[in-house]
Amino acid sequence: MPDDPDERSLIATMLRHRPAASRHRQVAHPCAEPGDDAAVVGPGEVVTVDAMVQGVHWDARSSAEDVGWKLVAVNASDVGAMGCLPTWAVLTLSMPAPADGAWAEGFGRGLGAGLARFGAQLVGGDTTASPGPIALSMTMAGRGVRPVGRHGARPGDDLWVSGALGDAAAGFLDDHPQGLAWLRRPDPPVELGAALGLHGLAHAMMDLSDGLSRDLPRLCQASGVGAVVDPSLLPAGPALHGLPDEHRLSRQLAFGDDYQLLFAADPADADAVRDLALQLGRRVTCVGRVVASGGARLADRAWPAPLFDHFPPGVTPS
Amino acid sequence: MPDDPDERSLIATMLRHRPAASRHRQVAHPCAEPGDDAAVVGPGEVVTVDAMVQGVHWDARSSAEDVGWKLVAVNASDVGAMGCLPTWAVLTLSMPAPADGAWAEGFGRGLGAGLARFGAQLVGGDTTASPGPIALSMTMAGRGVRPVGRHGARPGDDLWVSGALGDAAAGFLDDHPQGLAWLRRPDPPVELGAALGLHGLAHAMMDLSDGLSRDLPRLCQASGVGAVVDPSLLPAGPALHGLPDEHRLSRQLAFGDDYQLLFAADPADADAVRDLALQLGRRVTCVGRVVASGGARLADRAWPAPLFDHFPPGVTPS
Repeated sequence: MPDDPDERSLIATMLRHRPAASRHRQVAHPCAEPGDDAAVVGPGEVVTVDAMVQGVHWDARSSAEDVGWKLVAVNASDVGAMGCLPTWAVLTLSMPAPADGAWAEGFGRGLGAGLARFGAQLVGGDTTASPGPIALSMTMAGRGVRPVGRHGARPGDDLWVSGALGDAAAGFLDDHPQGLAWLRRPDPPVELGAALGLHGLAHAMMDLSDGLSRDLPRLCQASGVGAVVDPSLLPAGPALHGLPDEHRLSRQLAFGDDYQLLFAADPADADAVRDLALQLGRRVTCVGRVVASGGARLADRAWPAPLFDHFPPGVTPS
Repeated sequence: MPDDPDERSLIATMLRHRPAASRHRQVAHPCAEPGDDAAVVGPGEVVTVDAMVQGVHWDARSSAEDVGWKLVAVNASDVGAMGCLPTWAVLTLSMPAPADGAWAEGFGRGLGAGLARFGAQLVGGDTTASPGPIALSMTMAGRGVRPVGRHGARPGDDLWVSGALGDAAAGFLDDHPQGLAWLRRPDPPVELGAALGLHGLAHAMMDLSDGLSRDLPRLCQASGVGAVVDPSLLPAGPALHGLPDEHRLSRQLAFGDDYQLLFAADPADADAVRDLALQLGRRVTCVGRVVASGGARLADRAWPAPLFDHFPPGVTPS
């Protein structure tokens, strides 16, 4: 879940002080270090958590309803990327007192729609006053027969992505309507991730939340492999039509908020992967190959520079 | 988890939009409505969540280390009050960028100490930038043979509390050193709660986070019973010594942050309850009786007025 050096150093600080082991009992399958999209906390049971802050993770272009939906969607995306389906969720909501009833009502509506779409049950929550911006968190659990992490990619594997890349970037940067729609209400392919896990087709999997240029190196590092991506194969949606090549590529690779799957699979399973995606109404594209070493790279050029992380702090919240 | 009318109305808004049922699968034992200290999400498995905001839930009298400890302690208190022991936890931390490394370091130290004390394993987290005050959330899971809710109290039951009441109030209001110590680093009797659950001794149980005057009516409402408390029996710690009677009572009943157990038990089990507490080095006091009706009341006077909820919004954060 780390998405920048600052975050990695904060997490390292937290982990340095973790006790060596649980005193009362061991979690069945503890996640040794942060890295996977969710932690395995029991046989076939995963849990993930995401925080969203007004003015950092959303601006005035997102309604309260969009924010409620997205809070569920980004967590469901993590659960799906582990090869699991969502089960339950809990929520925290901190907002200035007295509470803005209209905002809460819209947020609740979007939250409910997201929970219904992704099949999670809200079982609890905590709301508090805050002198600052609205701050949200959601913890979501999921179940799968065989949760998939980031560590199993093997040299020779095909490297796949689902859907199209760069839509949220085109929404945020270019105000493209279809791009904005994905930025505000992403619909991650959670069922596809769960099905890939169920059928054992993904050797390693993660969701693309920070852009392929930052996420692929994480998968490679966790698996101890390299990867080569052919930029001409990257799937693009209509939001990128007409953009010059360089701008298209930076949006596909170096922004984030794609909430698509990145996974490595045996080339012998390529047809099975395509069939599964077809059955679930999702697009999948083989964009490259896992190799033994050399890091994560593009076939014919350097990675584009990151477009940036979320919104700059201090942006006027909606 | 609701602690004021505003929070109840916010939660009601969220719940109104909850989908009728999970699409993919049902959570084994869903918590029908918010109310218990934690939700039962599987056989013997509970989960709770708490948010803490700088300037609302702590002020300059609490160090970063205190805050890390307390975030774990308040969650562990909920888990113990369900008759369970903590298993895993996940964390979110939002703070202004660039991150205050010294604060994070202290927070991590207190967090680690709390996790070690209460036996929970930190399995994941998310850190984000925020233009506002530091905002934290922790979700904690627990296990117990027979989780205890608030709904099983029966007329004729003894009403017990653990420890002493009013210490945190005396810390916050009177700057009493021993009271401040509990306000900053509460040590809830989690093992006692788990043992009461394990042995089936508590018919209904909850933790005292908002003061007996607000928490007892919740237990009575959930159980469909009344209760009569004898104020002369309320346990007090040294932080209340020397206070006039009226001030002592308001601190014991109408502030909160006690993180002690409130539970109802069969009078025939009184010795077993006392023995268990003795073994675990905790004090228990029978303070009254569950009755058929008439609400939650004091034997000889009205409840003192609430001293207030947390800190007023806008207090200068530490």
